[in-house]
Amino acid sequence: MIFHYPNGQPYKAAEESSPQKPSSSARYGHRGMTLEEDLNVTNRYYIEADRAVIYKKPTPIQIVHVDYPKRSAAKITEAYFRKASTTDYNGVYRGKYIDFEAKETKYAHALPLKNFHDHQVEHMRRIKRHGGIGFIIVKFSKTDEVYLLDADYLDVYWTASREKGARQSIPKSLFLEKGFRIPQKYLPRIDYLQVVDDVYF
Amino acid sequence: MIFHYPNGQPYKAAEESSPQKPSSSARYGHRGMTLEEDLNVTNRYYIEADRAVIYKKPTPIQIVHVDYPKRSAAKITEAYFRKASTTDYNGVYRGKYIDFEAKETKYAHALPLKNFHDHQVEHMRRIKRHGGIGFIIVKFSKTDEVYLLDADYLDVYWTASREKGARQSIPKSLFLEKGFRIPQKYLPRIDYLQVVDDVYF
Repeated sequence: MIFHYPNGQPYKAAEESSPQKPSSSARYGHRGMTLEEDLNVTNRYYIEADRAVIYKKPTPIQIVHVDYPKRSAAKITEAYFRKASTTDYNGVYRGKYIDFEAKETKYAHALPLKNFHDHQVEHMRRIKRHGGIGFIIVKFSKTDEVYLLDADYLDVYWTASREKGARQSIPKSLFLEKGFRIPQKYLPRIDYLQVVDDVYF
Repeated sequence: MIFHYPNGQPYKAAEESSPQKPSSSARYGHRGMTLEEDLNVTNRYYIEADRAVIYKKPTPIQIVHVDYPKRSAAKITEAYFRKASTTDYNGVYRGKYIDFEAKETKYAHALPLKNFHDHQVEHMRRIKRHGGIGFIIVKFSKTDEVYLLDADYLDVYWTASREKGARQSIPKSLFLEKGFRIPQKYLPRIDYLQVVDDVYF
């Protein structure tokens, strides 16, 4: 069964992205793995290699009812997905605060802005104002390309899109011109810190 | 109804700690408010005053079953609380990565170490190694005193406690000697950044 978040993206249980048991598709290539799975494995690799401490935040859930069966764990029997007011990933790298959101698109030529919402863009503005490093990681799944783009560009396109009749996506050409291609390898799978080293340090 | 986390602490719905509708006890004093509620209001204040961007992470939940009723929101019908592998709070302040765990104790003379677990102590070690600021905020509820204590001291006591027959708590005297009392006021309620300013900058 596939669960869906409020944004329409399918829910993946933590177990499914376990690095201990890579599927054969994972073993021999990146196709078939979601960006989120790849980033989870990457972040775990960074922690184990003592290179950075970056985690995906848990999905925010509104709990309505919990049962307390005798002699077993508390069971949540009614709860709902909540909209995140921040980005999904944050942590510390080389003494700096790192914050990013990751998105995957099937479109070949643009990333639709409906992948984001106001609170997230505002959150990234704040992060940058307070001296943090903020960016988005975007996977164009058709071509299996992954890019890092500074949050300032998201901000510019987001703000422009609020105008009547304005474009509602970020063109792929911007990723080619202003973004940075992230190398994909066996380990770490999505080596975004290599790009962060070049761009922010 | 009061829910309980796996660590035995009661679950509080986000709504209950809403700053828009302070209860009369909240309006006239701190007693009656949990440390978590006070910190949520404090962090919201810091964000609104544009002083820092620090959030409590969502509670990690293991989702087992979700229903998709027609024309209404996805409903989680079976889920369980998971143990957090990191601390509860993190964010950015004055360009620095900030990370902390908050604990409340009814004991007058010590903080029992069972309030923490291995993963959290290890997480804080990593944070400090990578140049982040890491500490614990502890409320002694009997006397309504709140202290900030650097994570290094937790590490020292935690490590010592692993020895056979060793002490399993941090004495309050350590908070008095090596910790810093956090001023409690109307707004921000638990002004821990004032202490962070003095101690880490």
